[in-house]
Amino acid sequence: MADLEDVLSAADASLEASLGRLKDLVRIPSISTDKSHAGDCEKAAEWLVESLSEMGFDASVRKTDGHPMVVAHHAGADAAAPHVLFYGHYDVQPVDPLELWSTDPFEPTFSETPDGRKIMTGRGTSDDKGQLLTFVEACRAWKETRGDLPLNVSILFEGEEESGSPSLIPFLEANSDELKADLALVCDTGMWDAETPAISVSLRGLTGEEITVHAASRDLHSGHYGGAAANPIHILTGILGEMHDETGRVTIPGFYDGVSETPDDIKAMWDGLGRSAESFLSEVGLSKPSGEEGRSVLELTWARPTAEINGVWGGYTAPGFKTVIPAEASAKISFRLVGEQDPHAIRAAFREFVSSRIPEDCSVEFKAHGTSGAIHLPYESDELASAGKALTEEWGKPAAFVGMGGSIPVVGFFQSMLGMQSLLVGFALEDDCIHSPNEKYDVKSFHKGIRSWIRIMDALAAPKA
Amino acid sequence: MADLEDVLSAADASLEASLGRLKDLVRIPSISTDKSHAGDCEKAAEWLVESLSEMGFDASVRKTDGHPMVVAHHAGADAAAPHVLFYGHYDVQPVDPLELWSTDPFEPTFSETPDGRKIMTGRGTSDDKGQLLTFVEACRAWKETRGDLPLNVSILFEGEEESGSPSLIPFLEANSDELKADLALVCDTGMWDAETPAISVSLRGLTGEEITVHAASRDLHSGHYGGAAANPIHILTGILGEMHDETGRVTIPGFYDGVSETPDDIKAMWDGLGRSAESFLSEVGLSKPSGEEGRSVLELTWARPTAEINGVWGGYTAPGFKTVIPAEASAKISFRLVGEQDPHAIRAAFREFVSSRIPEDCSVEFKAHGTSGAIHLPYESDELASAGKALTEEWGKPAAFVGMGGSIPVVGFFQSMLGMQSLLVGFALEDDCIHSPNEKYDVKSFHKGIRSWIRIMDALAAPKA
Repeated sequence: MADLEDVLSAADASLEASLGRLKDLVRIPSISTDKSHAGDCEKAAEWLVESLSEMGFDASVRKTDGHPMVVAHHAGADAAAPHVLFYGHYDVQPVDPLELWSTDPFEPTFSETPDGRKIMTGRGTSDDKGQLLTFVEACRAWKETRGDLPLNVSILFEGEEESGSPSLIPFLEANSDELKADLALVCDTGMWDAETPAISVSLRGLTGEEITVHAASRDLHSGHYGGAAANPIHILTGILGEMHDETGRVTIPGFYDGVSETPDDIKAMWDGLGRSAESFLSEVGLSKPSGEEGRSVLELTWARPTAEINGVWGGYTAPGFKTVIPAEASAKISFRLVGEQDPHAIRAAFREFVSSRIPEDCSVEFKAHGTSGAIHLPYESDELASAGKALTEEWGKPAAFVGMGGSIPVVGFFQSMLGMQSLLVGFALEDDCIHSPNEKYDVKSFHKGIRSWIRIMDALAAPKA
Repeated sequence: MADLEDVLSAADASLEASLGRLKDLVRIPSISTDKSHAGDCEKAAEWLVESLSEMGFDASVRKTDGHPMVVAHHAGADAAAPHVLFYGHYDVQPVDPLELWSTDPFEPTFSETPDGRKIMTGRGTSDDKGQLLTFVEACRAWKETRGDLPLNVSILFEGEEESGSPSLIPFLEANSDELKADLALVCDTGMWDAETPAISVSLRGLTGEEITVHAASRDLHSGHYGGAAANPIHILTGILGEMHDETGRVTIPGFYDGVSETPDDIKAMWDGLGRSAESFLSEVGLSKPSGEEGRSVLELTWARPTAEINGVWGGYTAPGFKTVIPAEASAKISFRLVGEQDPHAIRAAFREFVSSRIPEDCSVEFKAHGTSGAIHLPYESDELASAGKALTEEWGKPAAFVGMGGSIPVVGFFQSMLGMQSLLVGFALEDDCIHSPNEKYDVKSFHKGIRSWIRIMDALAAPKA
């Protein structure tokens, strides 16, 4: 540890400046799913390029058919040192419902939690602007003290992670030689708890679908037509209501193909983490796990697939009442995938499940939103061991090797397209409210995140045992 | 017939002026369900009072807790003549989706249909401003030619028919002596077809409900929580999907209490009207009846109860995708009632059906929207015979005695609160698009509607056989 003190001290001394840079980045409302914010996405990419260029990176904004990528390179002090590709995303989720935010989502605001933690509130503070800057600021500390980096470092920042990453595959294909490294580093995950660092070794995949059921050619009066004319909301709710059986299992034929039971020793390790259903759910006002019966919440969210309705709409939804049979009704559905589930097969099976339930005089329209398989990193590898040791040194507690309920499609693409594995280390906390109003990031996460990356870079640079 | 020619001719001669008055009334956007249009509802009421006062009615705007009522009285030439209460409503449905209107909904526009019918397009032209003015203009023709009316006439115009009529019961209670007449005349129904006049002898009742299912205390990320946290859209669609069995029957326990099978002779009469499922549904782009199996569309819409979802919403519904598990999800549901179904018992049974399916760590909120029982008029009565004869004379075809799928709550209240039966005669056509974009009224409906009321008033005034 002693030989890193200069770099770690530099990070400590620069914390206020680092937080100032995070504020600048959060102020840019780079909502990728909303076309009216396309200019803001470009602005965020340019901000990052400028920041990296100042540090000596060869950085550039790269155009895509959607929001741009940021790519940057910096040689290590030793050309023979490992080459890493750090990935993060500068785009953020929409902010609705805006009325539930206690501060402007794009004016980052410092405050203290009731238990004394200093936090910064704002959209993207945690997911993923604060996280990606932990690595950038770690590089900055290395540069300031040593004038160089211990690894050959490339960086890829994406601007479409929150909207299905449509440009990612073509971009990786077109730039595979430039982007392929020995290992990817990804900072878009969380701590186990506020004291325990974590490395995520498995992630669920995702298949996203939007469906619209069409019935009559126009909205109908439910008095004149009710009982005789097809109601698309009935058809839609009927189908969605059939998607799970009474034990919580998904009923789509073939859905569980490729899903393995979690090995007993892994289940035992997870049980040892001591997360009860009550402790997991009480924080959000719930108490009973709602998925497949007889499984722990960690198994349900890390190792089991889901079919989740994320949005539904149809007919009259404003105040008051309108006795209408609408012409159409819609829903957005996401499937979280595990093991060897094929995201394309899941999409096809769902579409067949729906289509076979549509009356012959009605129709259904499908729209795909994102496709990624689940991924699993080997429990034993030098990189995992090095990173685990570095994290343990910084946090004073053994790093937990955990699963992830969410998908990070890029990790799958790194594996399948660039033959590159990913080390997933992040510092988000469960109460960060990502994707929700009042998203925040702990200043401690940011500060010790920077210090963690300084240590991980050093550990990865050390010759293998 | 000969002795009515002067009154009928006066109506013919005044048609342009009558249409001008209809245009003036349609121009007032009196949407009762939308609070921002409260001033317009008041304006419409004042317009009607002014119009009736000019004709010699003792007319006034009557305040309520909601939108005002219009009440007017005019003595008949013979004090011993029957006393009728004419009812209509000056409020209209919302106009969304506005982009589907081909003209401004509140700028009435004349045009011709492909088959040569002259129509006026605009919100309320048919439901119910055009219809209520047929009676007002009939009175005007009587006054202009005879200087008097053949009946003792009272008028009640409501401004909350499209929003559940919250003020109607208290108003009828407070003014029962003033409003009670020998017979109510209601003009809010339709013709059998463009050539065949109709009198509606049965109407379905309505129970309206809005439900909101609450789960977590905030929106959740479906990656972190999916599979473990309750999703209120799943709960809602699961419950709504269970509301009908595979034969189309409603599954709520006790729902069919008070529903009788339609007598065979009535079914035969309806079958004789020659309306096939195909002819009824093809106009709106459908072909198969969707309700209870094995019943005709006339039986389904006139004599069978329904549970219809009129609106559903929850989660992320804007363009793009958001992997959220929302905190709540909602739906608006209306029940069409027949026979002796008790609207309050239906509401209670539905709430029990829903509540019993809510997980213990979630909750549900209910909101009532309108309550009215079904009503049936006796097939044989002097008034029905007189009105049928008058309509047959005007249209040259026998009047059809039909059922009505929609509810007109006021008719039930007239029966239960004022002991008064209602004669339901209207001139709307099936393609009037009421409650939908491009609502219209045929000029012929308006013109011959006025002439029909002139004849009905005369027939009701004649001494009983």
